[in-house]
Amino acid sequence: MPSSTHFRPVRLEHASRLLNHGPTVLVTSAHGGRRNVMAAAWSMPVEFTPPRIAVVIDKRTYTRELVVGSGRFGLCVPGAMLVDLTYAVGQTSGRTEDKFARHGIAAKPGPVLGVPVIEDGCAAWLECRLIREPHTEEAYDTCFGEVVAAAADERIFAGGRWSFRDDNAALQTIHHLGGGHFVQGGRTVVARPL
Amino acid sequence: MPSSTHFRPVRLEHASRLLNHGPTVLVTSAHGGRRNVMAAAWSMPVEFTPPRIAVVIDKRTYTRELVVGSGRFGLCVPGAMLVDLTYAVGQTSGRTEDKFARHGIAAKPGPVLGVPVIEDGCAAWLECRLIREPHTEEAYDTCFGEVVAAAADERIFAGGRWSFRDDNAALQTIHHLGGGHFVQGGRTVVARPL
Repeated sequence: MPSSTHFRPVRLEHASRLLNHGPTVLVTSAHGGRRNVMAAAWSMPVEFTPPRIAVVIDKRTYTRELVVGSGRFGLCVPGAMLVDLTYAVGQTSGRTEDKFARHGIAAKPGPVLGVPVIEDGCAAWLECRLIREPHTEEAYDTCFGEVVAAAADERIFAGGRWSFRDDNAALQTIHHLGGGHFVQGGRTVVARPL
Repeated sequence: MPSSTHFRPVRLEHASRLLNHGPTVLVTSAHGGRRNVMAAAWSMPVEFTPPRIAVVIDKRTYTRELVVGSGRFGLCVPGAMLVDLTYAVGQTSGRTEDKFARHGIAAKPGPVLGVPVIEDGCAAWLECRLIREPHTEEAYDTCFGEVVAAAADERIFAGGRWSFRDDNAALQTIHHLGGGHFVQGGRTVVARPL
């Protein structure tokens, strides 16, 4: 059964939770009839309400051109089953070929901005409007965005919370250590009051 | 044996690796005879060379006052053995009491800036010089910093690479899911070429 059957909207006040633990994401974009997807290990929430995030998108990438041109982007959170794909789309440029087509990635338009979002094999996605900050984009390749829609696979994120279990290992988030090595999942521990 | 025995300098070109996979960090600061430590789930590298990072430090926090006042801060990467402490120092303010003293946290001055850094129970630390960006600090609570020194416990990070194994579980990084729930460690997976 495709993941999309299990995707449910995430309330915007819970959107930061999707990135809170530092997963590697896929940045999706589309502009002028072209589209692209790249991997990014460097993203983080910056505000709960309004829900805002920051993501580093190198100025030399085709994604940066599409994001700035269109004023919007998607962040899709790949599950462990997409580890090879995540690494692959981080190694090549979409300037010369459509990586969706090359890798057979199914994408659909996000509900608010129409940004391509990926559900099959992903745990979640966020649709974001670029907040233009030319200085920060230029000096630090850091792009800020406001989350306008989000959704997650209910088998791993429901009621505003992640649930990492043995039965959803394939959807667990991946965290790039460098050089194609990722940590996946992990044991959930609960802090005790001191 | 205290962790400090096992700390070794990390080359600055490898500093981004310490945060690449999205661990929750402890932000340390000192100014005018006062010091503080708080937890932050929202940080990321933004540049390899020079090594630069971004971290969200709420403008209402005492840490923000000390960081802006002194122009420097530390990011310490707590191991799983510090999960309770990490959550605890994220729940109270250091404005009225010294959290190092309250929790018995041993800190030493970093080698370049003298920022307090924590080694016992931590996997790594980074000493950072604040790069003043008043607009970004005000609008997004996002503070940029340049890493001027870094070190890691060689039992879990050596030669520029993390190594998560059964025998170093207590030092494995923790990733805050929200509400005191963290994921710890995890299985290392290696991407295969597509």
